[in-house]
Amino acid sequence: MTFEIKKTDGKARNGILKLPNGMVETPVFMPVGTQGTVKAMFTEKLEEIGFKIILANTYHMFLRPGCEVLDGFGGLNNFMKWDKPILTDSGGFQIMSLSKLTKIHNDGVHFQSHIDGKKFYLTPKLSMEIQNSIGSDIQMVLDQCIEYDTDITLVKNAMSLSLKWAELSKKSFFKKNKRKLFGIVQGGVNPDLRKFSAEETIKIGFDGYAIGGLAVGEGQKLMLQTLDYTVPLLPIDKPRYLMGVGTPQDLLEAVRRGVDMFDCVMPTRAGRHGLAYTSNGKINIRNSKYSKDHSPINSNSLCPVTSKYSRAYLHHLFKSKEILGSMILTYINLQYYDDLMIQLRKAIHDQKLDETMNQIYEKWDKKENI
Amino acid sequence: MTFEIKKTDGKARNGILKLPNGMVETPVFMPVGTQGTVKAMFTEKLEEIGFKIILANTYHMFLRPGCEVLDGFGGLNNFMKWDKPILTDSGGFQIMSLSKLTKIHNDGVHFQSHIDGKKFYLTPKLSMEIQNSIGSDIQMVLDQCIEYDTDITLVKNAMSLSLKWAELSKKSFFKKNKRKLFGIVQGGVNPDLRKFSAEETIKIGFDGYAIGGLAVGEGQKLMLQTLDYTVPLLPIDKPRYLMGVGTPQDLLEAVRRGVDMFDCVMPTRAGRHGLAYTSNGKINIRNSKYSKDHSPINSNSLCPVTSKYSRAYLHHLFKSKEILGSMILTYINLQYYDDLMIQLRKAIHDQKLDETMNQIYEKWDKKENI
Repeated sequence: MTFEIKKTDGKARNGILKLPNGMVETPVFMPVGTQGTVKAMFTEKLEEIGFKIILANTYHMFLRPGCEVLDGFGGLNNFMKWDKPILTDSGGFQIMSLSKLTKIHNDGVHFQSHIDGKKFYLTPKLSMEIQNSIGSDIQMVLDQCIEYDTDITLVKNAMSLSLKWAELSKKSFFKKNKRKLFGIVQGGVNPDLRKFSAEETIKIGFDGYAIGGLAVGEGQKLMLQTLDYTVPLLPIDKPRYLMGVGTPQDLLEAVRRGVDMFDCVMPTRAGRHGLAYTSNGKINIRNSKYSKDHSPINSNSLCPVTSKYSRAYLHHLFKSKEILGSMILTYINLQYYDDLMIQLRKAIHDQKLDETMNQIYEKWDKKENI
Repeated sequence: MTFEIKKTDGKARNGILKLPNGMVETPVFMPVGTQGTVKAMFTEKLEEIGFKIILANTYHMFLRPGCEVLDGFGGLNNFMKWDKPILTDSGGFQIMSLSKLTKIHNDGVHFQSHIDGKKFYLTPKLSMEIQNSIGSDIQMVLDQCIEYDTDITLVKNAMSLSLKWAELSKKSFFKKNKRKLFGIVQGGVNPDLRKFSAEETIKIGFDGYAIGGLAVGEGQKLMLQTLDYTVPLLPIDKPRYLMGVGTPQDLLEAVRRGVDMFDCVMPTRAGRHGLAYTSNGKINIRNSKYSKDHSPINSNSLCPVTSKYSRAYLHHLFKSKEILGSMILTYINLQYYDDLMIQLRKAIHDQKLDETMNQIYEKWDKKENI
């Protein structure tokens, strides 16, 4: 069994994912390791924080270093020296957002590399082959990702094509080492399309189910409404993964609605741009009001990094464009995200999710000492 | 006593520097922490490698974060969270190399900040005041730095002015907490000027003596010739510091000639540009021949970082412009520089410096496995 639910509180679940490279307690946030590294983080530092799973991008790994190199190393774990679970996306999202001259066909998508313009044709089969070379614990079916759009025909067509590709992906999935394959429910913000997509995806049958096509411009309110009617459509005994989400508040609200897994570039990207997440709210460390501030990012944090450096020093590092600034804030933000998930897991376990969430919201709203 | 010599081998010395924030064994290489951080390195990682002293730049600290912030923190140690010794230069070298519109006067130098164009007038007194705010263990007198030049009048004038500034610096030095003040011998590559500068600097009297005005374009041969006649002019019982030097080979040859202390941006800057120093010679990791190379940077290294990552992975990180590449190679290069100094200290202690140096040279020349 891939997934074991230990406790529930309302719709929220506290469970264990059993993966080839280790166990992962849920709800879980997965740091994004786009190009074979979680940017500015040594893997030991990820372990020090307590992360048990990271995400890698199939599109990027395919273009660089490429399957031949990955095959030579027996997969990404050995290449990047991370021995814990990895989840890979299918490549579909990056093709939409990064590559030039994409053209969708029934059996795949033409695209040009954003690095050198070289042309490729990504099919469900190729996506599964790349993910096989990466050797990830959890692999995703290829889907057609579209931006938020109110044109229902566009959304429906993308959903239908994604269903077809899901079937082809499953056929091409390399069943070995107890790796898992997740399906993706599409359908934009339309309840009927979501219902259809969920039912058909479940019919194909997967180890877990992702909710795709959200956090693409629809806004938090519509996203949460979509979760309200989509999550209950998913099997209770399988892990649920909300792709590319999100802010700390997004995570809270999605966990409350029964989502188990998340990934997002937000904590790492924000960290590189001088934005720190704390239990008291967000801090833009570049703000000159911090230039003489001796207090740490969060004096209540038990994290040795978060409580070590003064805001004045971090302000100085960002003003001076020093790499160490990115290293420290990336660590602090990932630590905060992980700490948030620990709090949520404990709250579900103790049947105190509402109470815990209210406390978290209250502290954010107060913005004490910021 | 600031300096205790434990052993000598020929002109080379193995000693102990006793500084306010700790003891430092010599010969020693000091990593450069230009803007209050050794670029891309957590201070814990510097400690992990074994560094006991770093250098900070007075010019940079003065412009950013500025003396008011440093005073507020009681000095740079507390600001950057490094509790071991710090040496500061005087600011003279950066004014020459970085700032705009410098104009030298008898009692100081006008310059414009390279950051915002703001005008300042750096005098020996101000340099000592800034270094007092930094609170460094070893402080340097203000000197006039010039590029390599064959015009003896220019060299002589700069030397004479530096002597005057050395006296003024000593007068303005804040004698507290057993901090040390070093003089700087100038005179370009002219034996007479070096002799005069050494004698006059020694007359003023300092805790240690630096050799300045080298590694500014004269080439290694002329630099070593200059050391040949300059080092013997210095007091035997005081530490000798060759400023801004250098390559691994420079360090070997200068240690052989009796130099005790070094600093250079080379290992950190090279690391950020994909150049690795190893006991088998230099590696440019961006070279495509490493794209499938499973071996680490140096398989003979006992360093856990140097032996951990494959060349193929590091090649990938540099091709992908990932911060982690800079982090790893900076670590590897600093580790190599420190390891080299450990070997030299042991060799002097065991009276085997020539033998050890020959072995080091032989391995470099062979370029095995590179």
